Amino acid sequence: MAEQTSQSISISRHAFSYQPPAIQGDFQGKHIISVDQFQRADLDILFQAATAIRERIRTQDRGLTELCAGKVMASLFFEASTRTDMSFQAAMRRLGGDVIAVSNGVRFSSMYKGENLSDTIRATGCYADVIVLRHPEIGSSYEAGYYLDLLNQRIDNPTVAISGGDGIGEHPTQALLDIFTIYDQKQALDKLTITLVGDLKHGRTVHSLAKLIANYAAAEVRLCLVAPASLRMPSAITDLVKSHQITVIETDNLLDVIEETDVIYWTRIQEERFGERAAYERIKDRFIMTPRMLKLAKADAILMHPLPRKHEMGTREDHDILDADPRSIYFEQMENGMYVRMALLVKVLRGVYV
Amino acid sequence: MAEQTSQSISISRHAFSYQPPAIQGDFQGKHIISVDQFQRADLDILFQAATAIRERIRTQDRGLTELCAGKVMASLFFEASTRTDMSFQAAMRRLGGDVIAVSNGVRFSSMYKGENLSDTIRATGCYADVIVLRHPEIGSSYEAGYYLDLLNQRIDNPTVAISGGDGIGEHPTQALLDIFTIYDQKQALDKLTITLVGDLKHGRTVHSLAKLIANYAAAEVRLCLVAPASLRMPSAITDLVKSHQITVIETDNLLDVIEETDVIYWTRIQEERFGERAAYERIKDRFIMTPRMLKLAKADAILMHPLPRKHEMGTREDHDILDADPRSIYFEQMENGMYVRMALLVKVLRGVYV
Amino acid sequence: MAEQTSQSISISRHAFSYQPPAIQGDFQGKHIISVDQFQRADLDILFQAATAIRERIRTQDRGLTELCAGKVMASLFFEASTRTDMSFQAAMRRLGGDVIAVSNGVRFSSMYKGENLSDTIRATGCYADVIVLRHPEIGSSYEAGYYLDLLNQRIDNPTVAISGGDGIGEHPTQALLDIFTIYDQKQALDKLTITLVGDLKHGRTVHSLAKLIANYAAAEVRLCLVAPASLRMPSAITDLVKSHQITVIETDNLLDVIEETDVIYWTRIQEERFGERAAYERIKDRFIMTPRMLKLAKADAILMHPLPRKHEMGTREDHDILDADPRSIYFEQMENGMYVRMALLVKVLRGVYV
Repeated sequence: MAEQTSQSISISRHAFSYQPPAIQGDFQGKHIISVDQFQRADLDILFQAATAIRERIRTQDRGLTELCAGKVMASLFFEASTRTDMSFQAAMRRLGGDVIAVSNGVRFSSMYKGENLSDTIRATGCYADVIVLRHPEIGSSYEAGYYLDLLNQRIDNPTVAISGGDGIGEHPTQALLDIFTIYDQKQALDKLTITLVGDLKHGRTVHSLAKLIANYAAAEVRLCLVAPASLRMPSAITDLVKSHQITVIETDNLLDVIEETDVIYWTRIQEERFGERAAYERIKDRFIMTPRMLKLAKADAILMHPLPRKHEMGTREDHDILDADPRSIYFEQMENGMYVRMALLVKVLRGVYV
Repeated sequence: MAEQTSQSISISRHAFSYQPPAIQGDFQGKHIISVDQFQRADLDILFQAATAIRERIRTQDRGLTELCAGKVMASLFFEASTRTDMSFQAAMRRLGGDVIAVSNGVRFSSMYKGENLSDTIRATGCYADVIVLRHPEIGSSYEAGYYLDLLNQRIDNPTVAISGGDGIGEHPTQALLDIFTIYDQKQALDKLTITLVGDLKHGRTVHSLAKLIANYAAAEVRLCLVAPASLRMPSAITDLVKSHQITVIETDNLLDVIEETDVIYWTRIQEERFGERAAYERIKDRFIMTPRMLKLAKADAILMHPLPRKHEMGTREDHDILDADPRSIYFEQMENGMYVRMALLVKVLRGVYV
Repeated sequence: MAEQTSQSISISRHAFSYQPPAIQGDFQGKHIISVDQFQRADLDILFQAATAIRERIRTQDRGLTELCAGKVMASLFFEASTRTDMSFQAAMRRLGGDVIAVSNGVRFSSMYKGENLSDTIRATGCYADVIVLRHPEIGSSYEAGYYLDLLNQRIDNPTVAISGGDGIGEHPTQALLDIFTIYDQKQALDKLTITLVGDLKHGRTVHSLAKLIANYAAAEVRLCLVAPASLRMPSAITDLVKSHQITVIETDNLLDVIEETDVIYWTRIQEERFGERAAYERIKDRFIMTPRMLKLAKADAILMHPLPRKHEMGTREDHDILDADPRSIYFEQMENGMYVRMALLVKVLRGVYV
């Protein structure tokens, strides 16, 4: 688990020793906490499930709503993440399952005010079959996994945790939907040049995505990392990727690599990350995707973004132009988020998706 | 679309040129944004559907829950409107459909903080089949219609928007449930004298209702408008109504018309609308419905109110007396809100209600 | 109904004269507002239903989701109570029913700001079959019962209220799940020594539980009340219990009774309840359950707690040790909360649970 940055209020020492189970082809009953649980074969299973489920939605196959009928998902969001939240809810509903959440929002609950997360998680585990947890503290989903394992020894119906993101730590389902979208758009990852752009130092999304890409060594994938010098990807992650024989290219200028890039993954650079405003001003224009910039990309490139976006894609008029470009597939990416989460839910709750 | 009163944060220029589609007898796949989309024949279809659905609920017809099974409604409320919110939720549930919403409330979400509404709407459109949008800015539902049309060209499952009210602009489903309630209570609108009372200048509910009443010219409907001189109905709307050969009577004294009124539609006058307190003090008592006032009404008159009510129906003791009067049908009106919204949901999602 | 402590904003005088109906073996259509509605035979029916429903969940009996299919529960929480809230939601879902709630939380709604509770309740009653109400004011659930009875004479589908707790007044479903848990763990209440510990003056949970225990006079139950002198159980309640020939033992020291206790019901003492800090400091350590204290209890005792817990069970390390003890059954108690609420919902909505 990632190191903790400050004194934790909610997280116990158990979170730091807890290891989530490797998937190894079998999702059923397993907490989904980290991309480290996944190997390439697991991704293949997940992609196949997400693709099959999408097709069943397209054909309005009502059998889908049998898959999680009678199951209850609890949505525990200690901080806002509207897309993750709503796509998990929609995913569970479309599988016929039900969703519970704190009516007034967890921020106003006793859960928020001083109760140990370990108690909150177990209380919720008494009611639900699966808990989607979003929490601002690193390690929160590990804590959930540890304490649910204890609870599950005591109560009738075991409960599974799925991380919806823990602070600046991990956000595994975002990374899984990202890698699925690349696979889905390109049919495979073979020989792709994937370029991640933005704040690669703090962005957990790009860290997890890079780790997943490392699984595709044999596919001759190349990874380009475009970031200001002060916001480069941590060496722990680039070293890991390189150790899988993936070629890594680092630069602070997208122009160096855009023409050979198949997948552009765009993220925001936040001014607050720079000590002095002058440093931010010097580089910021280079990290705004504009229609002019997109013109330089390959005809069959794809432009991804985890959303929400602010200034990093220019003005509202720029948005209109970028959005109309068939290479901009961030809304398809978001739609895929629902299918990947459906695949995960059905796999952890039932094991099969038919 | 109505003029915008201040610099918009969320709404693009597209909202101001977007025209929602006329219903013309076919609701399926059409955004519901304005009462201007409806003609009398469309209202007839809606009334018939609402009546049939109510009967099926009364007889506990379980087939109802097949009508929207497998469909997902997203509830996007950027400001509170508990009745609209809960009645849409209940409507969708009773049709067998599911509802998603931001767990912690949209006010705490990234959606609320600076993201363009156009992105929020499209993100939600990736997950849901229908979006009910309540937003404080005029034009917000037009913006939703415009951008969903763009998204629908790209994704698998098209998404429909239904306005739950946009600021001081329009609130079409409130007007539809109001006109349905009149029709339902009186069997027809023929020869009715309908009296709207209160702040007719700012009340969007009464504006939209007046527009819908204009469709009933041939039925010899008369419209009485009772308001203080400074809060009269805008002439744009009275002119429209008059152009349909509806008789319009304007006065600042309910006593002038109460004895001949069949339908009393009561709304609140807010002190803040008056420049000086003295002006408010002079007129306020005339705009409080009391048991004594209701005594003057016809034996078969009906008293309507969109709720919530505050001082405009007197004291808590007055409420008790008014509520016990069979002519007070505001709770039946509210119940009708659910049936009308069920009718709308099933018509836009499926086209038919059997 | 309990006396009101301060000038009420939301509650009318009707709440103070309203008597909720005695169950007398028939739950259907009856508001659940007070433990005073229940006699021993009613508890037996409820226990039987809860046990049967739990068994059906354990065996994944899909017929359960037929029991409340097509029914809508409205969750009206004017203050946070995450466990009550989520367990009612899960209960209704697992019975196949649906749940509606204010999307942004009732705290931001017009309901919260000045509308009479009587209007809020009736508005909600227009949409829902059952309302679960949590409200900070004593008498709020009586108010709900009174006004729903009026509404039910007017609208098509009658609506039932279930109290989710009203301020420092009553919280009947907590008491019902507590007494069920004792019955369930011990197979009967016969000859049990039940010990309630903590602030017995202000704790509504222990008041209601004591009243329910009074129904088991013939079972030779003994009730021990352990509290500081200034926080003893009100004499009105101890007198009631004694009038049923239940032996009551009062002390401020758990050591006096722990060795003969079968059921330890632990609650928190809040520092704010003491006039001077010194008084609190003198007694507080005696009201912290520790692993060392639990060692003194019988081998087959059970330790209950309504949760959430804070300092009254010591440190996080203490929690880990206590939680691992098979006598600590507070998570099973919480799980039972869902089964008891399922039993109540199905009984008030349908009368039968098969």
